[in-house]
Amino acid sequence: MFCLTVRDHIMIAHSFRGEVFGPAQRLHGATFVVDLELRRADLDANGIVADIGLVSQLLRSVLEPLNYRNLDELPEFAGRNTTTEVLAQEICHRVRERIRDGALGDEAGTALESLKVTLRESHLAWASYETGLRTG
Amino acid sequence: MFCLTVRDHIMIAHSFRGEVFGPAQRLHGATFVVDLELRRADLDANGIVADIGLVSQLLRSVLEPLNYRNLDELPEFAGRNTTTEVLAQEICHRVRERIRDGALGDEAGTALESLKVTLRESHLAWASYETGLRTG
Amino acid sequence: MFCLTVRDHIMIAHSFRGEVFGPAQRLHGATFVVDLELRRADLDANGIVADIGLVSQLLRSVLEPLNYRNLDELPEFAGRNTTTEVLAQEICHRVRERIRDGALGDEAGTALESLKVTLRESHLAWASYETGLRTG
Amino acid sequence: MFCLTVRDHIMIAHSFRGEVFGPAQRLHGATFVVDLELRRADLDANGIVADIGLVSQLLRSVLEPLNYRNLDELPEFAGRNTTTEVLAQEICHRVRERIRDGALGDEAGTALESLKVTLRESHLAWASYETGLRTG
Amino acid sequence: MFCLTVRDHIMIAHSFRGEVFGPAQRLHGATFVVDLELRRADLDANGIVADIGLVSQLLRSVLEPLNYRNLDELPEFAGRNTTTEVLAQEICHRVRERIRDGALGDEAGTALESLKVTLRESHLAWASYETGLRTG
Amino acid sequence: MFCLTVRDHIMIAHSFRGEVFGPAQRLHGATFVVDLELRRADLDANGIVADIGLVSQLLRSVLEPLNYRNLDELPEFAGRNTTTEVLAQEICHRVRERIRDGALGDEAGTALESLKVTLRESHLAWASYETGLRTG
Repeated sequence: MFCLTVRDHIMIAHSFRGEVFGPAQRLHGATFVVDLELRRADLDANGIVADIGLVSQLLRSVLEPLNYRNLDELPEFAGRNTTTEVLAQEICHRVRERIRDGALGDEAGTALESLKVTLRESHLAWASYETGLRTG
Repeated sequence: MFCLTVRDHIMIAHSFRGEVFGPAQRLHGATFVVDLELRRADLDANGIVADIGLVSQLLRSVLEPLNYRNLDELPEFAGRNTTTEVLAQEICHRVRERIRDGALGDEAGTALESLKVTLRESHLAWASYETGLRTG
Repeated sequence: MFCLTVRDHIMIAHSFRGEVFGPAQRLHGATFVVDLELRRADLDANGIVADIGLVSQLLRSVLEPLNYRNLDELPEFAGRNTTTEVLAQEICHRVRERIRDGALGDEAGTALESLKVTLRESHLAWASYETGLRTG
Repeated sequence: MFCLTVRDHIMIAHSFRGEVFGPAQRLHGATFVVDLELRRADLDANGIVADIGLVSQLLRSVLEPLNYRNLDELPEFAGRNTTTEVLAQEICHRVRERIRDGALGDEAGTALESLKVTLRESHLAWASYETGLRTG
Repeated sequence: MFCLTVRDHIMIAHSFRGEVFGPAQRLHGATFVVDLELRRADLDANGIVADIGLVSQLLRSVLEPLNYRNLDELPEFAGRNTTTEVLAQEICHRVRERIRDGALGDEAGTALESLKVTLRESHLAWASYETGLRTG
Repeated sequence: MFCLTVRDHIMIAHSFRGEVFGPAQRLHGATFVVDLELRRADLDANGIVADIGLVSQLLRSVLEPLNYRNLDELPEFAGRNTTTEVLAQEICHRVRERIRDGALGDEAGTALESLKVTLRESHLAWASYETGLRTG
């Protein structure tokens, strides 16, 4: 199995609802360093998992609408806590949808088996979500 | 699948028995940077894998009896080499037992599927142990 | 010259005024990984720059009022952009004041010559401020 | 499951064929930080996955013929792009062959189940290849 | 004193002349992770050392002509070894020239006192060059 | 000013005397990741601060007698706490003595102006000592 990972980041504000979050119920923020990992069993004719330029663009295009935003104001997160875990899943699903729509080309779109998104919120904590490309 | 990871560390002394260890047969020591990873298929109602505050406390409480110790003197390791691998497993098992005992609450205790403990002994080497929450 | 550095972090929300900031004029946030460095010419009788436990507590006590906050709402920053640079200076000044007030004990308070605070806002950018302990 | 990982690195020159590579079609180079991960279900009698000294030597011996080389001139890569993915696989296969030939001793050679090689080409991108020890 | 640092990278091929370089006399390559640090005594009216967007663009524009190149073929390095140290100095000088030419605006161009460029060639070695903005 | 830094590490046991050290008064241990930085105003004829191979060997030769040791048993530290700060100074002084004795050759021995040794004891704390090459 081959994996390819690229890194980018976003800087967002948000707050959480639920006593479990303690002081994080207040409006605060985070830098999330975001790693996108793509997996497939065999390489393409060029010897790559996917065009790393396209992968970086794809990740950037998915992160852009979240970057420098107060996530509490985004309609797509209404009624949900934008925890590190929830954001990892949301970003993973958006990336998957664009891959299915051809963002990495037909060959990669067919050959990729799974993907994983990891969000590092500090030097002490991170969360990730992984899923199959065609499942879910 | 979702993962949540938190980081802590311990500073210990120990020595190894066996020619394979060369100079590490002498009494020496290590800083182990410890990563605890928890996995589950779905998030709880708050949108989290587990209460990160509880997870950090749990990890700290498991590491405390090992921290600033000469492991050669701890009865639980008598007759065993406290290699990075053995310590990763021991810490993983102790964390698992506390989760089973309810340290992360009933919901997380039921929903968590597996856990992994990684110990980084330097910038050049690390070891980990992973296990199911209900197996073993 | 000796240096001792300890690391902690905060997660805050804020916004900037000024066209130079582009999209960062919107309410967003950041994780700042904070490094506090203390410098002195000679060690104390114990062979240390300062009690690392006290240094960590001092840094934590200075960071606590900023952590999980929207800095736009804090009166002390009214009319100022809470850029990484400004926050590094502010944290550095608050640490210095507490050292002058004896937070690290009399010996360290007298012997320390300068301090530096570095705030890492992502894996790609960071800023710092350094100053003498008795100047400024 | 236990994992043991050791880190080393190589510095190489190469070029790629294929429009997908853009400016990387020109002769350029890379530092690859190489992580070798070995996995097995149970530890040996010493409490280790494998002799870390032997693992480091094994990795070094596999990397040596590639280090400080222009990969475009090495016959074994003729007609292939030496992408990060391809190199991860090649290094992984060479490590596997040496383990099968006894480089880590008979016990480890029998007990190891799988291995993974990760090549970090920058702070923003990395690729890996993993395989079973007896499959493939 | 305030510092602002931004990070970027280049991937280059080169070779060295001189027995001291051993196998690095062969054509090989490197990923250089490049940190540009700018220093000034006081912040501007926006509370910053310089517009971080402009600083990143400036660094990128200086790195671009070196990126994905065989440095042995660039006329500006003819007769010189492109060691990590030499490249750090060269990049630092080019950045300084552009700042003098107004790349960061008049205010920053006047207020900046010094700059430092660090090139990390691996996880085990790095080199840097620092200079005043108006000296040299 | 040019700087060159190389990294290595040691794994040691020790204990501290003095109430300020709390639980670290017990026998424990540490991995110290050691960075040696050398500074000079101008490069040599090869375009380097010093032969990086010799610098790495020098650092290794200084660290070897400390590695895999219980520092409490070494006569040279009798009556002293082997704190991170004290070890940074001791290693720095030993490196300086070897440079003065010609370990890096005559040219570097004359041209080097200062050196700095940093010991990272965990991901949260580190200490360093710097000194002139001919002073002290």
